[in-house]
Amino acid sequence: MGDPNYDPKNHKLMTFHDAIAKFRDGSDTPRAYLERCLERIDAIENDVMAWEIINTEPARMAADDAGKRYADGNPLSPVDGMPIGIKDLIETVDMPTEYGSELFRDHRPIRDAASVNALRKGGAIILGKTVTVTFGGGDPSRTRNPHDLNRTPGGSSSGTAAAVGGGTIPGALGTHARGSTIRPASFCGAYAIKATFGALNRQGVFSAAHSMDHLGVFGGDLSDVWTMSRHISKHGGGDPGYPGLFGGDRAPPPRKPARLIRLETAGWNQTDDATKAVFEDFLGGLRDAGIEIFDRTDDPSIDAYEQVFADIPELWRSLYRFEFQWPMLQYKERYPDQIPPRLLMGLKEAEGLSQAEYREALNRRVRIRDLHRQLSHRADAFVTLSSPGPGPVGLDQGSAVYNEGSSVIGMPALSLPLMAVDSAPVGVQILGQFDEDERLTAIGRWIAEEHFNS
Amino acid sequence: MGDPNYDPKNHKLMTFHDAIAKFRDGSDTPRAYLERCLERIDAIENDVMAWEIINTEPARMAADDAGKRYADGNPLSPVDGMPIGIKDLIETVDMPTEYGSELFRDHRPIRDAASVNALRKGGAIILGKTVTVTFGGGDPSRTRNPHDLNRTPGGSSSGTAAAVGGGTIPGALGTHARGSTIRPASFCGAYAIKATFGALNRQGVFSAAHSMDHLGVFGGDLSDVWTMSRHISKHGGGDPGYPGLFGGDRAPPPRKPARLIRLETAGWNQTDDATKAVFEDFLGGLRDAGIEIFDRTDDPSIDAYEQVFADIPELWRSLYRFEFQWPMLQYKERYPDQIPPRLLMGLKEAEGLSQAEYREALNRRVRIRDLHRQLSHRADAFVTLSSPGPGPVGLDQGSAVYNEGSSVIGMPALSLPLMAVDSAPVGVQILGQFDEDERLTAIGRWIAEEHFNS
Repeated sequence: MGDPNYDPKNHKLMTFHDAIAKFRDGSDTPRAYLERCLERIDAIENDVMAWEIINTEPARMAADDAGKRYADGNPLSPVDGMPIGIKDLIETVDMPTEYGSELFRDHRPIRDAASVNALRKGGAIILGKTVTVTFGGGDPSRTRNPHDLNRTPGGSSSGTAAAVGGGTIPGALGTHARGSTIRPASFCGAYAIKATFGALNRQGVFSAAHSMDHLGVFGGDLSDVWTMSRHISKHGGGDPGYPGLFGGDRAPPPRKPARLIRLETAGWNQTDDATKAVFEDFLGGLRDAGIEIFDRTDDPSIDAYEQVFADIPELWRSLYRFEFQWPMLQYKERYPDQIPPRLLMGLKEAEGLSQAEYREALNRRVRIRDLHRQLSHRADAFVTLSSPGPGPVGLDQGSAVYNEGSSVIGMPALSLPLMAVDSAPVGVQILGQFDEDERLTAIGRWIAEEHFNS
Repeated sequence: MGDPNYDPKNHKLMTFHDAIAKFRDGSDTPRAYLERCLERIDAIENDVMAWEIINTEPARMAADDAGKRYADGNPLSPVDGMPIGIKDLIETVDMPTEYGSELFRDHRPIRDAASVNALRKGGAIILGKTVTVTFGGGDPSRTRNPHDLNRTPGGSSSGTAAAVGGGTIPGALGTHARGSTIRPASFCGAYAIKATFGALNRQGVFSAAHSMDHLGVFGGDLSDVWTMSRHISKHGGGDPGYPGLFGGDRAPPPRKPARLIRLETAGWNQTDDATKAVFEDFLGGLRDAGIEIFDRTDDPSIDAYEQVFADIPELWRSLYRFEFQWPMLQYKERYPDQIPPRLLMGLKEAEGLSQAEYREALNRRVRIRDLHRQLSHRADAFVTLSSPGPGPVGLDQGSAVYNEGSSVIGMPALSLPLMAVDSAPVGVQILGQFDEDERLTAIGRWIAEEHFNS
């Protein structure tokens, strides 16, 4: 029944990069690593319900194959032998892809999504499909928070976050159109990146709101998160028309930021006092380490940027509703019983939205992107909360108020599981400039290591 | 066996907008209109082979329903009762969608593409699926040119162009990633628009090269082409993240351009002398009508723009090959017998392409878009050929050399069936500025009417 004494400093997540040397010297094997994952899954799955399907025997065969490659000194890539879970909004050739919907019960694509294909060809073990909220935006899934079964794991990448945050697997893919990566990572105590819009190829991924959909990559630390992300981009590309995530195959070394901008966004007013206090403490630690932290009171350009965040929730809704009408409106008309109430509500609101209003929303997005870029000279990155508190009690997905900004304008975001409030995880969110994912990862690594070592 | 005396001035295409008044006054009905289409199809289909499937009885029911609405004075939209063919790269809920491939034999989507859905909800009759070249880029389809069965109809929208250009239906949808709309429209003597990139929602359309894929809209004149295009955008949106085609529900009135830029592109050197002579005559007609025509010898900025066209074929290839790898590479590995030789060849060439080269290709595209925009003050539109000549004898798709420019940078393009060479159709291509599709349509209308009336 979860961990009433959750403490991020003692929380054991699974990591993969540090197993590779042991695979090479024979003191560990991908098969043994996989079996440890399966044992951990077995221990909590009845309670947490993170998985739609686990492909145990094919995974064991893939692990044995990877083991032979390591024994021969010829692993295929830095993800060779890595067990990875795939959110069920993402196509897999060897398992059903159901989008959390009865409408797609046992739907079998004849192909992997570009991201899954890239990982699989690099030797990664595609272990199973993790639970998603229906179509990424429906009502809560059955998955529960591994640290407190009474709390939500967040959504819509609920199974992905619970599997990684629960310490059962080293990596998993999610998606993100509103808060579906950063929010559940925050609630479940996982590391995650929502890379720059377009940086990771979404082909074969369910489209919720195509101009805001992202892949999300979850891991037990930022080193694994980076390695998976870069592998996907290197071998599966970014989205067509976008430059794709770039940088080294291995995570960049930690890099101390000189200056950070602390953002309130529309979320601060919705944040509970306990979380505020923990976050202020966290910022104090950064200041103690010699990092300058600016906020809206220090600079009119930061204040101007904060002001646009007040409109972000409404802007997000305008974009989402216009875009998710297809194919949802058809599904609603053809298969009315199959669409969850929350999506039906959204569709109703979308009916009133004109193409002219949508175009105006796109123009507002362009202006916010410009404001974001203009702050690149002011600091190395932005720091804020990943969520207004720990995952609420119940199964509701929780608030995405801290996440909509990066969904709308597409800058990269990291969630770092560095805080606890009421013995439950809360993430620190670090935001960067467009296509500077590698630099952001380096800064995130420094912040995480400094926090745990100080 | 085709028409050895093809003459664009006497060529009868089917148009729909001019039937509406008769539907309203009862002197014609959508059902009678549909039956005329079916008769014309029946007369040539054995030779031309434009269709994968024709949904005759459901189409008759839909036509009868439309007839009742006109009788009641309540048609649903300007496309109510319009028989429309759908290229088989586009999803339809009531007919298989096979992408011209055995791999998708009898594949049944549970939904319509966004564009088909918009048309169907406006009362349009989704008559059937038109033949496509396999995955839009494979080897020639079986379809033949309705004006000369020995010639290619062009591809990959071969069935779409042959059905409209053959005068059997008033409108049809195609797609375009290289030349797949403008080229077959040229060869088959149809009107067509490849609207600005992103202007028409591609959701539910096979992705060949996603940053260059477009819907193509074919019709018997520009009035119907506009009405269909605008209806799709108004009720199905543009691509998510793009403003979408905008303007009035009905085609804009003809608008005389004051100045045109005549483009050679990389195509002029590959154009046969007979076609060159016919095109020079055509330009002479425009000059006689008082239009100023500039070319690269008149202006260094036009010359600079022409120079980049020399690199367009290679740039197109770099973009296409990088983007079409997914899911083609998987299909090749999993189902090697199902991929046509031409696609296998392209995949082989794609293997050598790095992410860094792709990124450089994207940067070159940005620079060409800027050059294109800079010419907006110099003239009202650009004029060039749609193809280097009539459809070649044989079934090979023919050259797309005049089409790759607008595929790469995404400006809108029209093909007007105003010329004949060797008694076979050749299109005049009019190109405009981004998102100025309505203005371009007005200019295209003036040019077509002036040409036929002078």
